[in-house]
Amino acid sequence: VLKELESRDAFDLKLIVSGAHLSKWHGNTLKLIEKDNFTIADKIDSLLMTDRLVQRAKGTASLISGIAQTVERENPDILLFVGDREESIATCVVGNYMDVLVAHLGGGDPVYGNSDDPVRTACSRMAHIHFCFADEYRQNLINSGEEDFRTFFTGNPALNNIDSTKVLDCDELSTRLDFDICAGNYLVVLSHPLSSEVKESYQQMKTLLRAVSKIVDSKNIKAVGIYPNTDPGSHGVINAINETKNDSIAFFKNLPRDVFVNLMRNSLCLAGNSSMGILEAPHYKLPVVNVGNRQRGRLNAGNVVFVDYQEKEIQDEINRACFDNAYRDCVKSVKNPYGDGSAHIRIADILESIDAKDKIWHTKKNFFP
Amino acid sequence: VLKELESRDAFDLKLIVSGAHLSKWHGNTLKLIEKDNFTIADKIDSLLMTDRLVQRAKGTASLISGIAQTVERENPDILLFVGDREESIATCVVGNYMDVLVAHLGGGDPVYGNSDDPVRTACSRMAHIHFCFADEYRQNLINSGEEDFRTFFTGNPALNNIDSTKVLDCDELSTRLDFDICAGNYLVVLSHPLSSEVKESYQQMKTLLRAVSKIVDSKNIKAVGIYPNTDPGSHGVINAINETKNDSIAFFKNLPRDVFVNLMRNSLCLAGNSSMGILEAPHYKLPVVNVGNRQRGRLNAGNVVFVDYQEKEIQDEINRACFDNAYRDCVKSVKNPYGDGSAHIRIADILESIDAKDKIWHTKKNFFP
Amino acid sequence: VLKELESRDAFDLKLIVSGAHLSKWHGNTLKLIEKDNFTIADKIDSLLMTDRLVQRAKGTASLISGIAQTVERENPDILLFVGDREESIATCVVGNYMDVLVAHLGGGDPVYGNSDDPVRTACSRMAHIHFCFADEYRQNLINSGEEDFRTFFTGNPALNNIDSTKVLDCDELSTRLDFDICAGNYLVVLSHPLSSEVKESYQQMKTLLRAVSKIVDSKNIKAVGIYPNTDPGSHGVINAINETKNDSIAFFKNLPRDVFVNLMRNSLCLAGNSSMGILEAPHYKLPVVNVGNRQRGRLNAGNVVFVDYQEKEIQDEINRACFDNAYRDCVKSVKNPYGDGSAHIRIADILESIDAKDKIWHTKKNFFP
Amino acid sequence: VLKELESRDAFDLKLIVSGAHLSKWHGNTLKLIEKDNFTIADKIDSLLMTDRLVQRAKGTASLISGIAQTVERENPDILLFVGDREESIATCVVGNYMDVLVAHLGGGDPVYGNSDDPVRTACSRMAHIHFCFADEYRQNLINSGEEDFRTFFTGNPALNNIDSTKVLDCDELSTRLDFDICAGNYLVVLSHPLSSEVKESYQQMKTLLRAVSKIVDSKNIKAVGIYPNTDPGSHGVINAINETKNDSIAFFKNLPRDVFVNLMRNSLCLAGNSSMGILEAPHYKLPVVNVGNRQRGRLNAGNVVFVDYQEKEIQDEINRACFDNAYRDCVKSVKNPYGDGSAHIRIADILESIDAKDKIWHTKKNFFP
Repeated sequence: VLKELESRDAFDLKLIVSGAHLSKWHGNTLKLIEKDNFTIADKIDSLLMTDRLVQRAKGTASLISGIAQTVERENPDILLFVGDREESIATCVVGNYMDVLVAHLGGGDPVYGNSDDPVRTACSRMAHIHFCFADEYRQNLINSGEEDFRTFFTGNPALNNIDSTKVLDCDELSTRLDFDICAGNYLVVLSHPLSSEVKESYQQMKTLLRAVSKIVDSKNIKAVGIYPNTDPGSHGVINAINETKNDSIAFFKNLPRDVFVNLMRNSLCLAGNSSMGILEAPHYKLPVVNVGNRQRGRLNAGNVVFVDYQEKEIQDEINRACFDNAYRDCVKSVKNPYGDGSAHIRIADILESIDAKDKIWHTKKNFFP
Repeated sequence: VLKELESRDAFDLKLIVSGAHLSKWHGNTLKLIEKDNFTIADKIDSLLMTDRLVQRAKGTASLISGIAQTVERENPDILLFVGDREESIATCVVGNYMDVLVAHLGGGDPVYGNSDDPVRTACSRMAHIHFCFADEYRQNLINSGEEDFRTFFTGNPALNNIDSTKVLDCDELSTRLDFDICAGNYLVVLSHPLSSEVKESYQQMKTLLRAVSKIVDSKNIKAVGIYPNTDPGSHGVINAINETKNDSIAFFKNLPRDVFVNLMRNSLCLAGNSSMGILEAPHYKLPVVNVGNRQRGRLNAGNVVFVDYQEKEIQDEINRACFDNAYRDCVKSVKNPYGDGSAHIRIADILESIDAKDKIWHTKKNFFP
Repeated sequence: VLKELESRDAFDLKLIVSGAHLSKWHGNTLKLIEKDNFTIADKIDSLLMTDRLVQRAKGTASLISGIAQTVERENPDILLFVGDREESIATCVVGNYMDVLVAHLGGGDPVYGNSDDPVRTACSRMAHIHFCFADEYRQNLINSGEEDFRTFFTGNPALNNIDSTKVLDCDELSTRLDFDICAGNYLVVLSHPLSSEVKESYQQMKTLLRAVSKIVDSKNIKAVGIYPNTDPGSHGVINAINETKNDSIAFFKNLPRDVFVNLMRNSLCLAGNSSMGILEAPHYKLPVVNVGNRQRGRLNAGNVVFVDYQEKEIQDEINRACFDNAYRDCVKSVKNPYGDGSAHIRIADILESIDAKDKIWHTKKNFFP
Repeated sequence: VLKELESRDAFDLKLIVSGAHLSKWHGNTLKLIEKDNFTIADKIDSLLMTDRLVQRAKGTASLISGIAQTVERENPDILLFVGDREESIATCVVGNYMDVLVAHLGGGDPVYGNSDDPVRTACSRMAHIHFCFADEYRQNLINSGEEDFRTFFTGNPALNNIDSTKVLDCDELSTRLDFDICAGNYLVVLSHPLSSEVKESYQQMKTLLRAVSKIVDSKNIKAVGIYPNTDPGSHGVINAINETKNDSIAFFKNLPRDVFVNLMRNSLCLAGNSSMGILEAPHYKLPVVNVGNRQRGRLNAGNVVFVDYQEKEIQDEINRACFDNAYRDCVKSVKNPYGDGSAHIRIADILESIDAKDKIWHTKKNFFP
């Protein structure tokens, strides 16, 4: 989306860079943003070096105060944000109080169970323009009282990021990872902590990794894992990862985008609880075993099975996802409710069409159905 | 509500004092809180000395960061807040990220036009328990996707504050105000700026005050005005007030509660755009002329007429509200949708019945109807 | 100084605007800065709307966090600040931790008694370049351990501001003030609260104003007063001002610079405790009666007498300052230790000569004599 | 010191816990504080998850704002802090503006080269009471203008912490470390980044570790290393550590106090740039090779040699420190200028003797010699 906006004369795009992008512990992805030559309006720190529950609240405070300073100086027409994290609610608070239009990518998603979820729905009440990743999501917003004219079904812009990623063959992938894999001989593991189950995060990851170890050993395949995000509980997940000693399992921090996408393209299945399994895996036609309560309630294209943290059950479902050809054919035929990969075009078109001075966009005249 | 909670053994009540309570410019009402002997957990500053639009965003940031520090130390079961201001959204953000239950007084109100309104609806998505001032408001929350069991119609707790306020006769009122009034010879003016019409605030108040001046002069009555809140635009309102020279009109800052209530009890009508006109005036059976867009969309008990900022129209409607006996009788008979004055009991009862450790309260399993 | 820097190609000057400049309650002087066409890097709020002692500490926190954001983006060679206020210490903290040179106007002044004074001396230990208003001040810095090559005697740049201010005659002055004065028929009163005597501020100002009233009445002259700064205790000073009812005494908020300067030029004397009496009055050859402990310890050109808050003593000294011609002649002949009005040139010359990349400026190799 | 204060009835000790104590990445030492049963007034986050230069400035801002909130609530007589870090300057700013006495442990130290050093000297100008670790340090403060009666030579309280630490034999040490050592067969390496040489931190540590590797290999001894602090540049130091592959060298994060002390007791020498080498090593009679500019200027008891980042020179001096018996005897006889291990008693005695209401402590009447 950002590259599409950058390419059009109608926009004067500037980024606020915050959170994990500014952290060496999370791969210092600020450098990637700089390499892409985006103009950075300000860098605003929001990650505190602690695992306590205050972290995200205080991070939100820093974002609001920093973004307000930026917005006053830059005086933008529109603030664009994605999702349901600290920067999302911070952007909405600033836009709302400073009377700047706020456009939200990713509203209307009914997933629940994480502290991100109330934030996402709260953001929908404060955002002025809604870009929804599925038409069902758009309908959810309207049903809950958002004005129809503010809502748009665009699809998930991540799909275009996937399509435009260069193909890497498995030799190159293996070299880049320093870990030998070939197409169809590995699965991918990606699991984040759940804010309502922080204390269980270590045991949950242990359970998942025991199941993965058994499959990897018995079927003679490999597993490529990715480290979790920084939410409370991530320390437990990381400890479980670090304790796992199995030469066929390798975990990585912050894979480069091209490696990640090609890893998905050639994977047997995805296990864990990443939103990727719901939102992007249908585009890869990739079977997903979603473990635990994270992502429950989300629109399932048909490629996802949900299981509890039961070792045997996880093992069985990963087995089916990887090796049951009838099931795998069925997943290959799912229709993707998350759009056709042209979300970035639609979003840019809609933003271009909006007159940011028109008061109709600024003041909602209805909040309830 | 606070006194009711304080009186029960089940609660260990502590207050966070913030915003205008800490400002000498707004009457330093911290002293009243201290006089009532409430325990103060922390004082958190949120008012910046500026009229720029950044004020409320930065104030919210200070509140979030300060409240997070307090909540970590005090480890409360429930955070209780009222309304739709900076402290409301700040409390919701902290409660949501720190997994502390948040109870909201005043959700479901459909009023629109002010930046408070998206904040209030956003708070409803993050709050875990909803105390609604009207049954229609409660229904609004359910219709927009809130889980039924979290919503309660309690009525407006302000009504009990009114009932329990000692009667002052007009002599005493006049002495306290140092301004001569008697029952039925004056109207009350109270008008706040609207965040979407900041630049118009001065002219709007000028228009309202011209209309009030003409009535006051022609009917030989008086007008008692109250200064506005501190939102952006308040400076314009204050300037218009300060330029008004009419011996029959007097403006006051921050009237003591007992003076204010008795002023309402004996007033001919209320003109302006205060939420009081909607939420409390029905309890006084007081006719209200609501000027401009503020309060539009709110549940009208039948005592309110809405007019634009047209001098003639305002004048006509104030005249009718003050002197048309048929209309005044009709207002006297309105049924108050905002409850019967026992909201404080209901709220305390419900809070007492809640097991704050029960996970059912913490995680919403549904966001959309 | 700013205009001198702006006029030279060697500099790319940007301002951070903060504190009272952003407050309508203090005259909203941001507008004057904008009128002068300076480039504003960021506006950073630091004034909280409270009279509690937390105000200045929390304001310093906001400044540090905001300035850090600005400095990271702008990547300046030098941060320039004046004096001993919240922005002074905030600038030093940011410059020190972000390895940006900090140049300080006003160090080495030995005045004591206010919380500004430890801040000023602390700033001298963190600042890399010192522009001192008197040669004695420069010597103080060296004596306390600052490296010689970092210290410069430039004189007080305010003197040039005075010289370059257009002459207004008393008719025009009277019109601008809406208060009748003529040359030599009035004195000026300007008094700020002292942080170590906050609670006494009201009584102190009452005492001063009683003395001034008596002189004004007995000598048939006038007094022009100016409101205090916003430090804790200012409320007491303002209350005392507001209670003073004497038609020959008029108080003003935030006088335009040209009015203020011409007021000084024609005044009989200055009474109060403003630093102006020490730093600028010698340039006007103006007798000063400094009341109370503020300014004690400061270098006295010979135009200042120090008195306690004793009504009689104040009255006597003002009388002498206004009407004792021998004393007034003596004041006229004082040599001004605060320079010759060319400080702005010297400061710009020195800044221009500094290679901000040269490590010698960045790291102090000595802190003690 | 804290335990001594806790043991006396005269004090009601409460801690503010901040910085690395709250970070899992730094060993989460909050738990140790809680185990010692100290009362925690508030936990205040100040470490941002970034390696950029803004980190320490923004951390200082968070501390000031958080500490101000705590101080207003707790209303302490005295704020006690140690050293020259973010919390030091933050405590001074709060104490100064809120008129609370501030007592400083560690002022007057003439070390230079790090951004901590100007902070430490600035803190001395704002602190009201100075506990100096060496009499020369106390003299430095007086020479730079601090009032005599505020300064005390107490010695370094860390020495008592050493004396009271239980002896562990080398078997137990080896088990606790999971790394085999015995008395006199190893040296200790501890090196932090220098704020004025951030970019060199990686190469500097590489140089140091090459020298250490050569000695370890040629002399058949071992080296026990400790990870650096979190200052900018620490990432470079850590990278250099992680690239070092030598089975005789082991690095540890955050060693328990008893392990650390016993490691020192039995070590051949200390190499690096830790302040420990200056301040505590004389108490152990331990030879120190201080590499680079950090610690330069500090009072050397005679046990320290200073070398540049030259591999050969480092190697030679470590060799001498470890194996030249004449030199080692000489180090054994040094007189410790940092006191006799009773600093904690002296500090508590002095604090007990101070009347915090006495204005003499609050207002400095002199800043310059």
